[in-house]
Amino acid sequence: MILDPATTPKSEFYPWLIRCLVPRPIAWVSTTSREGVHNLAPFSFFTAISTEPPTLCFAPGRHPVTGAKKDTLINIEATGDFVVNVVPAELAADMNETATDFPHGASEFEAAKVTAVPAERVKAPRVQESPIHFECERYEIVQIGPDGPGGAALVIGRIMLLHVDDRVLTNGKVDYDLFSPLARLGGMEYARLGERFQMARKKYTPR
Amino acid sequence: MILDPATTPKSEFYPWLIRCLVPRPIAWVSTTSREGVHNLAPFSFFTAISTEPPTLCFAPGRHPVTGAKKDTLINIEATGDFVVNVVPAELAADMNETATDFPHGASEFEAAKVTAVPAERVKAPRVQESPIHFECERYEIVQIGPDGPGGAALVIGRIMLLHVDDRVLTNGKVDYDLFSPLARLGGMEYARLGERFQMARKKYTPR
Repeated sequence: MILDPATTPKSEFYPWLIRCLVPRPIAWVSTTSREGVHNLAPFSFFTAISTEPPTLCFAPGRHPVTGAKKDTLINIEATGDFVVNVVPAELAADMNETATDFPHGASEFEAAKVTAVPAERVKAPRVQESPIHFECERYEIVQIGPDGPGGAALVIGRIMLLHVDDRVLTNGKVDYDLFSPLARLGGMEYARLGERFQMARKKYTPR
Repeated sequence: MILDPATTPKSEFYPWLIRCLVPRPIAWVSTTSREGVHNLAPFSFFTAISTEPPTLCFAPGRHPVTGAKKDTLINIEATGDFVVNVVPAELAADMNETATDFPHGASEFEAAKVTAVPAERVKAPRVQESPIHFECERYEIVQIGPDGPGGAALVIGRIMLLHVDDRVLTNGKVDYDLFSPLARLGGMEYARLGERFQMARKKYTPR
Protein backbone atom coordinates (compact mmCIF):
# COMPACT_ATOMS: atom_id res chain seq x y z
CA MET A 1 0.00 0.00 0.00
CA ILE A 2 1.05 3.62 -0.50
CA LEU A 3 0.40 6.48 1.91
CA ASP A 4 0.59 10.03 0.68
CA PRO A 5 0.93 12.39 3.67
CA ALA A 6 -0.60 15.20 1.59
CA THR A 7 -3.93 13.33 1.42
CA THR A 8 -3.73 11.36 4.69
CA PRO A 9 -4.90 12.98 7.95
CA LYS A 10 -1.99 13.51 10.40
CA SER A 11 -3.76 11.33 12.96
CA GLU A 12 -3.69 8.44 10.46
CA PHE A 13 -0.17 9.03 9.17
CA TYR A 14 1.46 9.13 12.61
CA PRO A 15 0.64 5.49 13.49
CA TRP A 16 2.19 4.36 10.19
CA LEU A 17 5.30 6.43 10.81
CA ILE A 18 5.92 4.89 14.23
CA ARG A 19 5.13 1.36 13.04
CA CYS A 20 7.53 1.63 10.10
CA LEU A 21 10.51 3.49 11.59
CA VAL A 22 11.62 0.78 14.00
CA PRO A 23 13.09 -0.28 16.41
CA ARG A 24 13.55 3.04 18.20
CA PRO A 25 15.68 3.63 21.32
CA ILE A 26 14.04 5.56 24.16
CA ALA A 27 15.43 8.78 25.61
CA TRP A 28 14.10 9.07 29.14
CA VAL A 29 14.73 12.78 29.52
CA SER A 30 15.06 14.44 32.93
CA THR A 31 14.91 18.20 33.28
CA THR A 32 14.37 20.81 36.00
CA SER A 33 11.87 23.63 35.73
CA ARG A 34 12.66 27.26 36.44
CA GLU A 35 10.83 26.70 39.76
CA GLY A 36 13.07 23.72 40.61
CA VAL A 37 10.61 20.86 39.97
CA HIS A 38 12.14 17.78 38.32
CA ASN A 39 10.46 16.38 35.23
CA LEU A 40 10.95 13.02 33.52
CA ALA A 41 9.42 11.92 30.20
CA PRO A 42 10.17 9.37 27.45
CA PHE A 43 10.84 10.22 23.78
CA SER A 44 11.48 7.69 21.03
CA PHE A 45 12.30 10.15 18.24
CA PHE A 46 15.89 10.05 19.44
CA THR A 47 19.33 9.48 17.94
CA ALA A 48 23.01 10.48 17.98
CA ILE A 49 24.46 12.98 15.50
CA SER A 50 28.18 13.69 15.74
CA THR A 51 31.34 13.18 17.79
CA GLU A 52 32.98 16.63 17.42
CA PRO A 53 31.29 18.06 19.37
CA PRO A 54 29.54 14.94 20.69
CA THR A 55 25.83 15.53 20.10
CA LEU A 56 22.52 13.70 20.24
CA CYS A 57 18.99 14.83 19.50
CA PHE A 58 15.37 14.07 20.35
CA ALA A 59 12.13 15.58 19.11
CA PRO A 60 9.39 16.58 21.56
CA GLY A 61 6.27 17.11 19.47
CA ARG A 62 3.60 19.69 20.19
CA HIS A 63 0.27 18.51 21.66
CA PRO A 64 -1.68 17.22 18.63
CA VAL A 65 -4.80 19.26 19.52
CA THR A 66 -3.81 22.23 21.67
CA GLY A 67 -0.31 22.71 20.22
CA ALA A 68 1.05 23.07 23.77
CA LYS A 69 4.77 22.57 24.37
CA LYS A 70 5.82 19.65 26.55
CA ASP A 71 7.28 20.48 29.97
CA THR A 72 10.56 18.88 28.88
CA LEU A 73 10.96 21.50 26.15
CA ILE A 74 9.80 24.36 28.37
CA ASN A 75 12.37 23.33 30.98
CA ILE A 76 15.25 23.00 28.48
CA GLU A 77 14.42 26.44 27.08
CA ALA A 78 14.47 27.82 30.64
CA THR A 79 17.57 26.07 32.04
CA GLY A 80 19.57 25.11 28.96
CA ASP A 81 20.24 21.52 29.97
CA PHE A 82 18.89 17.98 30.33
CA VAL A 83 19.92 14.39 31.00
CA VAL A 84 19.11 11.46 28.70
CA ASN A 85 18.71 8.30 30.76
CA VAL A 86 18.72 5.10 28.73
CA VAL A 87 15.86 2.69 29.57
CA PRO A 88 16.68 -0.93 30.37
CA ALA A 89 13.83 -3.37 29.73
CA GLU A 90 13.32 -4.00 33.45
CA LEU A 91 12.35 -0.32 33.93
CA ALA A 92 9.67 -0.45 31.20
CA ALA A 93 6.73 -0.10 33.62
CA ASP A 94 8.39 2.82 35.46
CA MET A 95 9.15 4.54 32.17
CA ASN A 96 5.52 4.09 31.10
CA GLU A 97 4.33 5.82 34.31
CA THR A 98 6.21 8.92 33.19
CA ALA A 99 4.46 8.94 29.78
CA THR A 100 1.26 10.06 31.53
CA ASP A 101 0.16 13.59 30.72
CA PHE A 102 0.76 15.09 34.16
CA PRO A 103 -0.08 18.73 34.83
CA HIS A 104 2.82 21.20 34.80
CA GLY A 105 4.54 21.19 38.17
CA ALA A 106 3.85 17.52 39.00
CA SER A 107 6.96 15.38 39.36
CA GLU A 108 7.08 12.15 37.37
CA PHE A 109 9.90 10.94 39.64
CA GLU A 110 7.34 10.40 42.40
CA ALA A 111 4.80 8.72 40.11
CA ALA A 112 7.40 6.33 38.70
CA LYS A 113 9.07 5.81 42.10
CA VAL A 114 12.51 6.42 40.63
CA THR A 115 15.25 8.41 42.30
CA ALA A 116 16.62 11.76 41.17
CA VAL A 117 20.35 12.04 41.81
CA PRO A 118 22.43 15.13 41.01
CA ALA A 119 24.30 15.35 37.73
CA GLU A 120 27.84 16.75 37.69
CA ARG A 121 27.78 19.24 34.83
CA VAL A 122 24.10 20.15 34.46
CA LYS A 123 21.20 21.26 36.67
CA ALA A 124 18.87 18.46 35.54
CA PRO A 125 18.99 15.31 37.68
CA ARG A 126 19.92 11.76 36.65
CA VAL A 127 17.69 8.71 37.18
CA GLN A 128 19.62 6.56 39.63
CA GLU A 129 17.92 3.33 38.49
CA SER A 130 19.07 3.78 34.87
CA PRO A 131 22.60 2.45 34.21
CA ILE A 132 23.47 4.99 31.47
CA HIS A 133 23.15 8.78 31.58
CA PHE A 134 24.11 11.41 29.02
CA GLU A 135 24.47 14.83 30.68
CA CYS A 136 23.67 17.37 27.95
CA GLU A 137 23.71 21.10 27.41
CA ARG A 138 21.41 22.68 24.86
CA TYR A 139 23.38 22.96 21.61
CA GLU A 140 20.64 24.05 19.21
CA ILE A 141 16.85 23.78 18.99
CA VAL A 142 15.52 23.52 15.44
CA GLN A 143 11.82 24.29 15.03
CA ILE A 144 10.19 21.98 12.47
CA GLY A 145 6.73 22.75 11.15
CA PRO A 146 4.19 25.01 12.84
CA ASP A 147 4.52 26.66 16.24
CA GLY A 148 1.45 24.58 17.19
CA PRO A 149 -0.25 21.21 16.54
CA GLY A 150 1.86 18.82 14.42
CA GLY A 151 5.03 20.84 14.84
CA ALA A 152 8.04 19.63 16.78
CA ALA A 153 11.25 20.95 18.27
CA LEU A 154 14.37 19.05 17.39
CA VAL A 155 16.42 19.44 20.56
CA ILE A 156 20.12 18.95 19.84
CA GLY A 157 22.19 18.42 22.98
CA ARG A 158 25.92 18.57 23.44
CA ILE A 159 27.05 15.60 25.54
CA MET A 160 29.06 16.99 28.47
CA LEU A 161 29.50 13.75 30.42
CA LEU A 162 28.55 10.08 29.94
CA HIS A 163 27.95 7.86 32.97
CA VAL A 164 27.97 4.09 32.55
CA ASP A 165 27.32 1.99 35.62
CA ASP A 166 30.11 -0.55 36.22
CA ARG A 167 27.47 -3.23 36.82
CA VAL A 168 26.66 -3.32 33.05
CA LEU A 169 30.30 -3.67 31.98
CA THR A 170 32.25 -6.82 31.16
CA ASN A 171 35.96 -6.35 30.37
CA GLY A 172 35.39 -2.61 30.11
CA LYS A 173 32.57 -2.81 27.52
CA VAL A 174 28.80 -2.49 27.77
CA ASP A 175 27.46 -6.05 27.96
CA TYR A 176 23.94 -6.45 26.56
CA ASP A 177 23.44 -9.53 28.72
CA LEU A 178 23.73 -7.16 31.71
CA PHE A 179 21.99 -4.17 30.07
CA SER A 180 19.01 -5.10 27.92
CA PRO A 181 17.78 -1.89 26.25
CA LEU A 182 14.07 -1.40 25.63
CA ALA A 183 12.96 -0.80 22.04
CA ARG A 184 9.89 1.16 20.95
CA LEU A 185 7.74 -0.08 18.06
CA GLY A 186 4.36 1.15 16.81
CA GLY A 187 1.03 1.40 18.62
CA MET A 188 1.48 0.43 22.25
CA GLU A 189 4.19 -2.11 21.41
CA TYR A 190 7.65 -2.41 22.90
CA ALA A 191 10.31 -5.09 22.43
CA ARG A 192 13.31 -6.59 24.12
CA LEU A 193 16.34 -7.51 22.05
CA GLY A 194 16.50 -11.04 20.67
CA GLU A 195 19.34 -12.84 18.91
CA ARG A 196 22.52 -10.77 18.54
CA PHE A 197 25.16 -11.28 15.88
CA GLN A 198 28.27 -9.58 14.53
CA MET A 199 29.09 -8.39 11.01
CA ALA A 200 32.41 -6.75 10.18
CA ARG A 201 32.41 -3.89 7.70
CA LYS A 202 34.27 -5.00 4.58
CA LYS A 203 37.12 -3.09 2.99
CA TYR A 204 36.92 -2.21 -0.70
CA THR A 205 39.20 -4.26 -2.95
CA PRO A 206 39.32 -3.16 -6.57
CA ARG A 207 38.79 -6.02 -9.00
CA MET B 1 32.64 4.81 34.97
CA ILE B 2 32.46 8.37 33.70
CA LEU B 3 33.60 9.57 30.28
CA ASP B 4 34.28 13.24 29.72
CA PRO B 5 34.28 13.94 25.96
CA ALA B 6 36.53 16.97 26.59
CA THR B 7 39.35 14.71 27.78
CA THR B 8 38.54 11.55 25.77
CA PRO B 9 39.87 11.18 22.20
CA LYS B 10 37.00 11.14 19.63
CA SER B 11 38.11 7.70 18.47
CA GLU B 12 37.55 6.40 22.02
CA PHE B 13 34.31 8.27 22.70
CA TYR B 14 32.55 7.14 19.52
CA PRO B 15 32.49 3.41 20.47
CA TRP B 16 30.91 4.32 23.83
CA LEU B 17 28.31 6.51 22.16
CA ILE B 18 27.18 3.73 19.81
CA ARG B 19 27.22 1.09 22.54
CA CYS B 20 25.11 3.21 24.90
CA LEU B 21 22.53 4.80 22.55
CA VAL B 22 20.73 1.57 21.61
CA PRO B 23 18.92 -0.12 19.88
CA ARG B 24 19.11 2.00 16.72
CA PRO B 25 17.00 1.55 13.58
CA ILE B 26 18.87 1.52 10.26
CA ALA B 27 18.15 3.93 7.42
CA TRP B 28 19.32 2.25 4.23
CA VAL B 29 19.52 5.40 2.14
CA SER B 30 19.38 5.31 -1.65
CA THR B 31 20.33 8.34 -3.71
CA THR B 32 21.30 9.19 -7.27
CA SER B 33 24.38 11.20 -8.19
CA ARG B 34 24.37 14.17 -10.55
CA GLU B 35 25.84 11.74 -13.13
CA GLY B 36 22.96 9.28 -12.62
CA VAL B 37 24.75 6.58 -10.60
CA HIS B 38 22.65 5.04 -7.81
CA ASN B 39 24.15 4.90 -4.32
CA LEU B 40 23.04 2.90 -1.28
CA ALA B 41 24.45 3.15 2.25
CA PRO B 42 23.31 2.41 5.82
CA PHE B 43 23.05 4.99 8.62
CA SER B 44 22.01 4.23 12.20
CA PHE B 45 21.91 7.82 13.48
CA PHE B 46 18.33 7.97 12.25
CA THR B 47 14.93 8.93 13.67
CA ALA B 48 11.56 10.59 12.96
CA ILE B 49 10.86 14.20 13.93
CA SER B 50 7.38 15.55 13.16
CA THR B 51 4.09 14.85 11.42
CA GLU B 52 3.28 18.35 10.08
CA PRO B 53 5.12 18.29 7.77
CA PRO B 54 6.07 14.61 8.14
CA THR B 55 9.84 14.57 8.60
CA LEU B 56 12.65 12.21 9.51
CA CYS B 57 16.39 12.73 9.83
CA PHE B 58 19.67 10.88 9.62
CA ALA B 59 23.23 12.03 10.22
CA PRO B 60 25.98 11.14 7.74
CA GLY B 61 29.25 11.90 9.50
CA ARG B 62 32.40 13.16 7.82
CA HIS B 63 35.27 10.73 7.26
CA PRO B 64 37.07 10.60 10.65
CA VAL B 65 40.51 11.24 9.11
CA THR B 66 40.09 13.01 5.76
CA GLY B 67 36.87 14.87 6.62
CA ALA B 68 35.43 13.84 3.23
CA LYS B 69 31.66 13.96 2.72
CA LYS B 70 29.87 10.69 2.09
CA ASP B 71 28.46 10.14 -1.40
CA THR B 72 24.97 10.00 0.13
CA LEU B 73 25.30 13.60 1.31
CA ILE B 74 26.96 14.77 -1.94
CA ASN B 75 24.07 13.26 -3.90
CA ILE B 76 21.34 14.76 -1.70
CA GLU B 77 22.98 18.18 -2.00
CA ALA B 78 23.04 17.72 -5.79
CA THR B 79 19.56 16.26 -6.38
CA GLY B 80 17.55 17.32 -3.32
CA ASP B 81 16.06 13.91 -2.60
CA PHE B 82 16.57 10.40 -1.20
CA VAL B 83 14.74 7.24 -0.19
CA VAL B 84 15.00 5.60 3.23
CA ASN B 85 14.57 1.85 2.90
CA VAL B 86 13.97 0.05 6.19
CA VAL B 87 16.16 -3.04 6.73
CA PRO B 88 14.52 -6.34 7.63
CA ALA B 89 16.78 -8.78 9.50
CA GLU B 90 16.94 -11.15 6.53
CA LEU B 91 18.66 -8.44 4.44
CA ALA B 92 21.39 -7.87 7.07
CA ALA B 93 24.20 -9.34 4.94
CA ASP B 94 23.13 -7.32 1.86
CA MET B 95 22.96 -4.14 3.93
CA ASN B 96 26.46 -4.84 5.28
CA GLU B 97 27.83 -5.12 1.72
CA THR B 98 26.75 -1.51 1.17
CA ALA B 99 28.64 -0.31 4.27
CA THR B 100 31.91 -0.89 2.38
CA ASP B 101 33.82 2.27 1.53
CA PHE B 102 33.38 2.10 -2.25
CA PRO B 103 34.96 4.73 -4.48
CA HIS B 104 32.69 7.54 -5.75
CA GLY B 105 30.83 6.33 -8.82
CA ALA B 106 30.64 2.65 -7.83
CA SER B 107 27.11 1.34 -7.32
CA GLU B 108 26.39 -0.49 -4.09
CA PHE B 109 23.26 -1.94 -5.69
CA GLU B 110 25.49 -4.26 -7.73
CA ALA B 111 27.71 -5.19 -4.78
CA ALA B 112 24.72 -6.02 -2.58
CA LYS B 113 22.79 -7.67 -5.42
CA VAL B 114 19.65 -5.70 -4.61
CA THR B 115 17.35 -4.17 -7.17
CA ALA B 116 16.81 -0.46 -7.78
CA VAL B 117 13.20 0.31 -8.71
CA PRO B 118 11.91 3.80 -9.54
CA ALA B 119 10.32 5.93 -6.85
CA GLU B 120 7.19 7.94 -7.65
CA ARG B 121 7.97 11.38 -6.26
CA VAL B 122 11.76 11.51 -6.14
CA LYS B 123 14.70 10.80 -8.47
CA ALA B 124 16.42 8.40 -6.03
CA PRO B 125 15.48 4.72 -6.46
CA ARG B 126 13.85 2.37 -3.97
CA VAL B 127 15.32 -1.00 -2.91
CA GLN B 128 12.82 -3.55 -4.18
CA GLU B 129 13.82 -6.17 -1.60
CA SER B 130 12.99 -3.84 1.34
CA PRO B 131 9.29 -3.89 2.33
CA ILE B 132 9.17 -0.26 3.54
CA HIS B 133 10.32 2.89 1.71
CA PHE B 134 10.10 6.53 2.70
CA GLU B 135 10.43 8.77 -0.37
CA CYS B 136 11.92 12.05 0.92
CA GLU B 137 12.74 15.49 -0.33
CA ARG B 138 15.48 17.53 1.32
CA TYR B 139 13.80 19.70 3.96
CA GLU B 140 16.83 21.13 5.73
CA ILE B 141 20.47 20.16 6.27
CA VAL B 142 21.89 21.29 9.60
CA GLN B 143 25.69 21.31 9.81
CA ILE B 144 26.91 20.16 13.22
CA GLY B 145 30.53 20.66 14.22
CA PRO B 146 33.40 21.28 11.83
CA ASP B 147 33.26 21.19 8.05
CA GLY B 148 35.73 18.28 8.33
CA PRO B 149 36.68 15.30 10.56
CA GLY B 150 34.22 14.72 13.43
CA GLY B 151 31.53 16.95 11.94
CA ALA B 152 28.23 15.68 10.62
CA ALA B 153 25.34 16.85 8.50
CA LEU B 154 21.91 16.32 10.00
CA VAL B 155 19.84 15.64 6.90
CA ILE B 156 16.17 16.36 7.55
CA GLY B 157 13.87 14.91 4.92
CA ARG B 158 10.24 15.66 4.23
CA ILE B 159 8.37 12.40 3.68
CA MET B 160 6.56 12.67 0.34
CA LEU B 161 5.31 9.08 0.10
CA LEU B 162 5.43 5.95 2.26
CA HIS B 163 5.36 2.51 0.64
CA VAL B 164 4.53 -0.52 2.76
CA ASP B 165 4.52 -3.89 1.04
CA ASP B 166 1.20 -5.73 1.53
CA ARG B 167 3.15 -8.88 2.39
CA VAL B 168 4.13 -7.41 5.81
CA LEU B 169 0.56 -6.39 6.72
CA THR B 170 -2.01 -8.29 8.78
CA ASN B 171 -5.45 -6.69 9.07
CA GLY B 172 -4.05 -3.47 7.60
CA LYS B 173 -1.22 -3.10 10.13
CA VAL B 174 2.52 -3.77 9.99
CA ASP B 175 3.02 -7.21 11.53
CA TYR B 176 6.43 -7.70 13.15
CA ASP B 177 6.11 -11.45 12.69
CA LEU B 178 6.19 -10.73 8.94
CA PHE B 179 8.63 -7.81 9.10
CA SER B 180 11.46 -8.26 11.60
CA PRO B 181 13.45 -5.01 11.67
CA LEU B 182 17.21 -5.14 12.19
CA ALA B 183 18.62 -3.19 15.15
CA ARG B 184 22.10 -1.69 15.38
CA LEU B 185 24.07 -1.90 18.62
CA GLY B 186 27.72 -1.02 19.36
CA GLY B 187 30.91 -2.37 17.82
CA MET B 188 30.06 -4.79 15.03
CA GLU B 189 26.91 -5.98 16.80
CA TYR B 190 23.38 -6.16 15.42
CA ALA B 191 20.23 -7.64 16.93
CA ARG B 192 16.89 -9.05 15.97
CA LEU B 193 13.84 -8.20 18.05
CA GLY B 194 12.99 -10.56 20.89
CA GLU B 195 9.92 -10.64 23.12
CA ARG B 196 7.28 -8.00 22.32
CA PHE B 197 4.74 -6.62 24.77
CA GLN B 198 2.18 -3.84 25.00
CA MET B 199 1.85 -1.02 27.52
CA ALA B 200 -0.97 1.52 27.32
CA ARG B 201 -0.18 5.12 28.18
CA LYS B 202 -2.08 6.04 31.37
CA LYS B 203 -4.32 9.04 31.74
CA TYR B 204 -3.72 11.45 34.61
CA THR B 205 -6.25 11.24 37.45
CA PRO B 206 -5.91 13.91 40.14
CA ARG B 207 -5.87 12.44 43.63
